[in-house]
Amino acid sequence: MPSPMEKAGILVEALPYIKKFYGKTVVIKYGGHAMINCELKKAVLTDAVLMKYVGMHPVIVHGGGPEITGMLKKVGKESSFVGGLRVTDAETMEIAQMVLVGKVNKDIVGMINSIGGNAVGLSGKDGNLLVAEKKMGKVRTRDGAEELVDIGHVGEVRQVNPGIVNTVIREGYIPVVAPVAEGEAGESYNVNADSAAGVLAVALRADKLIILTDVEGILADRNDKNSLLSTITLEEVPGLIDRGIIDGGMIPKVECCVAALRGGVSTTHILDGRVPHSVLLEVFTDRGVGTMVVK
Amino acid sequence: MPSPMEKAGILVEALPYIKKFYGKTVVIKYGGHAMINCELKKAVLTDAVLMKYVGMHPVIVHGGGPEITGMLKKVGKESSFVGGLRVTDAETMEIAQMVLVGKVNKDIVGMINSIGGNAVGLSGKDGNLLVAEKKMGKVRTRDGAEELVDIGHVGEVRQVNPGIVNTVIREGYIPVVAPVAEGEAGESYNVNADSAAGVLAVALRADKLIILTDVEGILADRNDKNSLLSTITLEEVPGLIDRGIIDGGMIPKVECCVAALRGGVSTTHILDGRVPHSVLLEVFTDRGVGTMVVK
Amino acid sequence: MPSPMEKAGILVEALPYIKKFYGKTVVIKYGGHAMINCELKKAVLTDAVLMKYVGMHPVIVHGGGPEITGMLKKVGKESSFVGGLRVTDAETMEIAQMVLVGKVNKDIVGMINSIGGNAVGLSGKDGNLLVAEKKMGKVRTRDGAEELVDIGHVGEVRQVNPGIVNTVIREGYIPVVAPVAEGEAGESYNVNADSAAGVLAVALRADKLIILTDVEGILADRNDKNSLLSTITLEEVPGLIDRGIIDGGMIPKVECCVAALRGGVSTTHILDGRVPHSVLLEVFTDRGVGTMVVK
Amino acid sequence: MPSPMEKAGILVEALPYIKKFYGKTVVIKYGGHAMINCELKKAVLTDAVLMKYVGMHPVIVHGGGPEITGMLKKVGKESSFVGGLRVTDAETMEIAQMVLVGKVNKDIVGMINSIGGNAVGLSGKDGNLLVAEKKMGKVRTRDGAEELVDIGHVGEVRQVNPGIVNTVIREGYIPVVAPVAEGEAGESYNVNADSAAGVLAVALRADKLIILTDVEGILADRNDKNSLLSTITLEEVPGLIDRGIIDGGMIPKVECCVAALRGGVSTTHILDGRVPHSVLLEVFTDRGVGTMVVK
Amino acid sequence: MPSPMEKAGILVEALPYIKKFYGKTVVIKYGGHAMINCELKKAVLTDAVLMKYVGMHPVIVHGGGPEITGMLKKVGKESSFVGGLRVTDAETMEIAQMVLVGKVNKDIVGMINSIGGNAVGLSGKDGNLLVAEKKMGKVRTRDGAEELVDIGHVGEVRQVNPGIVNTVIREGYIPVVAPVAEGEAGESYNVNADSAAGVLAVALRADKLIILTDVEGILADRNDKNSLLSTITLEEVPGLIDRGIIDGGMIPKVECCVAALRGGVSTTHILDGRVPHSVLLEVFTDRGVGTMVVK
Amino acid sequence: MPSPMEKAGILVEALPYIKKFYGKTVVIKYGGHAMINCELKKAVLTDAVLMKYVGMHPVIVHGGGPEITGMLKKVGKESSFVGGLRVTDAETMEIAQMVLVGKVNKDIVGMINSIGGNAVGLSGKDGNLLVAEKKMGKVRTRDGAEELVDIGHVGEVRQVNPGIVNTVIREGYIPVVAPVAEGEAGESYNVNADSAAGVLAVALRADKLIILTDVEGILADRNDKNSLLSTITLEEVPGLIDRGIIDGGMIPKVECCVAALRGGVSTTHILDGRVPHSVLLEVFTDRGVGTMVVK
Repeated sequence: MPSPMEKAGILVEALPYIKKFYGKTVVIKYGGHAMINCELKKAVLTDAVLMKYVGMHPVIVHGGGPEITGMLKKVGKESSFVGGLRVTDAETMEIAQMVLVGKVNKDIVGMINSIGGNAVGLSGKDGNLLVAEKKMGKVRTRDGAEELVDIGHVGEVRQVNPGIVNTVIREGYIPVVAPVAEGEAGESYNVNADSAAGVLAVALRADKLIILTDVEGILADRNDKNSLLSTITLEEVPGLIDRGIIDGGMIPKVECCVAALRGGVSTTHILDGRVPHSVLLEVFTDRGVGTMVVK
Repeated sequence: MPSPMEKAGILVEALPYIKKFYGKTVVIKYGGHAMINCELKKAVLTDAVLMKYVGMHPVIVHGGGPEITGMLKKVGKESSFVGGLRVTDAETMEIAQMVLVGKVNKDIVGMINSIGGNAVGLSGKDGNLLVAEKKMGKVRTRDGAEELVDIGHVGEVRQVNPGIVNTVIREGYIPVVAPVAEGEAGESYNVNADSAAGVLAVALRADKLIILTDVEGILADRNDKNSLLSTITLEEVPGLIDRGIIDGGMIPKVECCVAALRGGVSTTHILDGRVPHSVLLEVFTDRGVGTMVVK
Repeated sequence: MPSPMEKAGILVEALPYIKKFYGKTVVIKYGGHAMINCELKKAVLTDAVLMKYVGMHPVIVHGGGPEITGMLKKVGKESSFVGGLRVTDAETMEIAQMVLVGKVNKDIVGMINSIGGNAVGLSGKDGNLLVAEKKMGKVRTRDGAEELVDIGHVGEVRQVNPGIVNTVIREGYIPVVAPVAEGEAGESYNVNADSAAGVLAVALRADKLIILTDVEGILADRNDKNSLLSTITLEEVPGLIDRGIIDGGMIPKVECCVAALRGGVSTTHILDGRVPHSVLLEVFTDRGVGTMVVK
Repeated sequence: MPSPMEKAGILVEALPYIKKFYGKTVVIKYGGHAMINCELKKAVLTDAVLMKYVGMHPVIVHGGGPEITGMLKKVGKESSFVGGLRVTDAETMEIAQMVLVGKVNKDIVGMINSIGGNAVGLSGKDGNLLVAEKKMGKVRTRDGAEELVDIGHVGEVRQVNPGIVNTVIREGYIPVVAPVAEGEAGESYNVNADSAAGVLAVALRADKLIILTDVEGILADRNDKNSLLSTITLEEVPGLIDRGIIDGGMIPKVECCVAALRGGVSTTHILDGRVPHSVLLEVFTDRGVGTMVVK
Repeated sequence: MPSPMEKAGILVEALPYIKKFYGKTVVIKYGGHAMINCELKKAVLTDAVLMKYVGMHPVIVHGGGPEITGMLKKVGKESSFVGGLRVTDAETMEIAQMVLVGKVNKDIVGMINSIGGNAVGLSGKDGNLLVAEKKMGKVRTRDGAEELVDIGHVGEVRQVNPGIVNTVIREGYIPVVAPVAEGEAGESYNVNADSAAGVLAVALRADKLIILTDVEGILADRNDKNSLLSTITLEEVPGLIDRGIIDGGMIPKVECCVAALRGGVSTTHILDGRVPHSVLLEVFTDRGVGTMVVK
Repeated sequence: MPSPMEKAGILVEALPYIKKFYGKTVVIKYGGHAMINCELKKAVLTDAVLMKYVGMHPVIVHGGGPEITGMLKKVGKESSFVGGLRVTDAETMEIAQMVLVGKVNKDIVGMINSIGGNAVGLSGKDGNLLVAEKKMGKVRTRDGAEELVDIGHVGEVRQVNPGIVNTVIREGYIPVVAPVAEGEAGESYNVNADSAAGVLAVALRADKLIILTDVEGILADRNDKNSLLSTITLEEVPGLIDRGIIDGGMIPKVECCVAALRGGVSTTHILDGRVPHSVLLEVFTDRGVGTMVVK
């Protein structure tokens, strides 16, 4: 156990970081293991509360795929996916919204409050925060052509009205956003949480976008956990995709980072959510725990 | 169809009411038929939007019993009731919260937005709005004694932190509140929507509390719809209960009104939610459509 | 008499208009019959009070020719006119100012207050609101040439300092402006109320300019009251003047509209002030009661 | 002519007075010679402008009896008086209002503007500034009894709503108020300018009330101009009236001072308006030029 | 060296303290070893900067006795003391002021700035912050009586005008105050830094007063460093003085604490300034490093 | 002695100047005789207080060479100069800072307060107001070449952070600035007061820069005091230097004016500080008492 002097030293070490990020907005895409494991969950949300107290403005955008799947099972409904996207009929949409807004979001809000923060949960419908339009799924036909298919209430954000989030931040709350959006005609859409976090970061003129994942970050050699690329630039991204170093589910995450950087966000991070306090270590120490994507 | 002159006349007639309620807060407990019937729903929410535009601050608190029951059925769970209160085990609580916060609340928010207002949905957990403690159910034993039984996550509001609602009002949104609260230890509670509306009205220093019901109001003779008591006073309430004129489910509603009046709310109203635009008629014309309870 | 349901319906019908004009400034040139007939007067001013309560910012600019003529007669002074403009010697100017500022303006202020609004009367001298310079009259000589003649204290507005009007609006009052201005050297000028309303609308960045007249609007055939042109564009104006459809006293009114549109006012209206609540019908319903001039 | 050093000295001498009255409100009842003589008029209004620039808040309340009489003559109407009060029928009231609001007030506003200040003229009707009720005239019957007679539109101020004056002050203007008030039923009243100044001083929490007169102040011996009482206290007033030292038209003026002092005004002054810059000398030097009435 | 996880843990441990003191003002009397030893100095001021960044409002009041003595020696002036107070003639006062305001204060300001804070140095003369009156020295005569002697420019604070300190805090600076005050007649006074810190804490409605000393705190047995009294109450103070446990130079320090507590400060602390980061340990951990005096 | 009427006249004469400079910032470089002679000192500072009360924002920047020399003598240290700049070793710097910040500055603050103003003393270190870098001295070698020599802690201002001065002005205080600055590495620098005043005037967007000197201004013929050049332009400066009319110590002062004018200051003035109230005469009358340098 560190001595009091060591404790003091660590707090003092954090000072330059506290100073650097004072008054800055940080959007955290929260999901995966860090949302399921109770201890990790508490660690991430404690990091957010700490950030708030030292003058930063954390904004949490969460996912909830496994919880949705679980609830669908409960009501006897099977999920099918097209190109990684859940086919979302009206009933699935209703369940998804209930789970994201009525369960996952409120659990996060409740835990932040019990840690000593003060959170306000929002969906993309509140204050017209996220306006989306229908997104088509893509399938390969037998002859290899790409075909668009209707996958229901899956949307892509077209407009962000960040007023309510800014209000909530200014009044001292931590906003927690569920990725459910509204269409122009009032219909509901499930939107991808990573990309919701990205467009929100741009609209809020955030300084940082942090995406929590269940991997170490981007590895130069996927079999060697010591080959972590701690920083990559926008320019390097296409080459890394070509060489298969960025692949699979990591591609859309990196693309969210790229879009956020192009929209004015200063730095973006893909962190290992399985490491406790990975957000805090990223923000308050000089030891990064994942891959930073910068301009 | 009224002539243009008549139209003008009606708008002008509304002026003294608009003036009278300018800047005043009105809490509307919204439930029953008015929430199920699509046309009535649109009418109530349109009234709220209109109130907002003419300078009032409507706040909507909704229930959702039938929707909860429906969802419980879907997942194969039966509801049991003790003294009118749903026995709420952990799973029921989770479903109830999902339905209230993730479905009913968002439907209302979405409809207000599509009418031209701008709503923000909140639960009692957001910003620690409603803090509750466990409430016991009451049963009669065979020998007629009253006995308290544990009915799970049913709570009574003990503290209201109206900050987030005031913020949302001040920024021009219509707050829509789901009656889910948090206990001191972070546990979830289902709270009665009528009484949540009542305590919120007091905490917001509201001018009016309106409870929408599925009856005409309080009838002197329950078989005569023309025997509506259009105004009753606090003092008359006990006598009316003794004489059975206020009875059954109307008793707790009237008690909410009484508590709100004692807490400083100017007037309280039990309106017939089955009449389209009953809120608007109450507020903007001299024709009341239910029973007003006053000091 | 409309039923309560019809009443509610009419209020609800007004909602989109209320929403559309929320926070917008509307300058109303008030004169003619609408200022003389007591019932019409009350109707116009009630419309303004209603507009104020539903979030609009009405500004009234009034004339007062007949009252000036009356007062001049009382003191035994005859009025002479050159090209439609009153020859205004020093004594006439003094009388005109007394009547406009000390009688007509205060009557309007008093009536607005008694209806339930809160008005503040201003002249162009207060806060240097309207700064004017001398305007010459035009006469035709015998040989048909146009000659300029001195007609005294008749002025044309050269500068508008809208500060005091904005202050009065922001504090919740309805400003009522008398068309008397000051010259650079401190001399008084009588200015045309239509054009004062026009330049004020531009300076206030008003959304609408409404000119009340004693005719139906612009008629395609002056003998057919059903031939009303409900909308004309800037471009059509010269042609309509050439063809004599816009003629006489209507020409300068339309020119005020044209100038206001060019200065940034969104829409301008020439309404029939003899119709009760014509302003309200124009603003809150889809039934126009005159001619709208637009870009 | 003073040397530059002497000039500097005089400015410096003013410093403690400037400091003392910084941010304070001073109500000046302006009338008599100071309003008729052009040079005196310019001197008084220049004093007010100077006061404004050095951080004080001058408010001018003016009379206008001689101008009203003149105008009444012009229209062939004789004035009759009861107990010093003008019998004011409806026509007289109309003329009085026109003269006070439309002529005298605007002349003052115009002159302040031309000196380099920025004035806004108001009547008691604007923003409901002065609400009055009917005042009866008093006559002695033959047997010496006092009898009340109806003298028409003569009023006494019963309520002051100083909002509009405070707004105008805060925005940097000098308010100029004409003593015309409105009754509860919307009727017009002529009110005494001295007492209007007094009640306004109380409502504005003014520091000073200055009443300009056409005499030196209160003289211990009316035949000796060197017998000026430079300061008297509230307590001395009744004795001075008993001994006839305060008499005639001076009595109501002193009573206004007494009422203002009782309402919280710090000091009240009866100054000789025939001395140029008497206001400035009173406020900025240690040489008073009249009688100060204090608690 | 602590691992990253341990680092994170320590930051998280600080959270409840950060939360508890958010927005609170803490006055730190800074002197003794902590001001002379360069490393200790940096540690104390770093603590203050850290406090500022996490939302607290530290205010530093410093002494400077040794530096004054050093400068006096340099100019060949001996210091004499009466009852622990320096006899302060005019020349000594001038030197003391120069050293405190022109050297010690600016060194502290400079070091805070170089650490990354933003400090503004003030003396008690700036903005009339500290107004003092002459304080007499006390000597014992031969027969044991107490006699008052004039010891020159030694003062006691009689009035605090905290406006400038509040302004400086609100604008984000750390105020650093030198204990030099001004008398009513403009004369200079040297005031005791402990008591200046105490009265300032009261005037600023501070939450905490921290006095840095060169001892461990109050020891129950002065020969046993493990006998530290970590908390004492107001009521216990007189008994502790009687029993000699609080004695010598500690008495006035404890009296400052007592006065501050009576003036509304929540807690007061006598800390060991020789321990690096003793302020930070006191504020951000549960390990106190001195004696806390509470109500 | 001027009569009351003359006094009034002089105050009125000042009105256009008060109006002209209302809300404007004036930086006054204060030094020389005006700082040593007690009466002159009081006159200058009274002028500043008067300016503050009539709505201007005076900022005082002072020197203190003679006082520094005096103190150095006291501690037995000789001053040496290179090209007019004092060679400033570490000990000299410490003494200079003590004298400027701890003595001269506080004397000015104390005197302003005793006159009735409210001053706050600042050095260039407070709030990082003045950031400087080392400046080399210039000497002529035997062969006439210019050589740079290290003269210690003599600096040139490279950055101005006027935040703290603006704060202090806005809160109603008169800022008094000592010309001591900080280097990037935290080292102290003595900076020239004239040029500190100049760069501060630019950073504050001042309207006027006034430099008090011990001469009449710029004389066309130095032997004829009546040959004062009351206004010169930027363009004329090089010619006047070439012709030797501007020479010696006047050159850097004029260069400060030139730099200030180029930085946006409207007018700059070199005034005779030996004339009492020269600042006031310059600002409030049409009689200049020195040389104005304009664009």
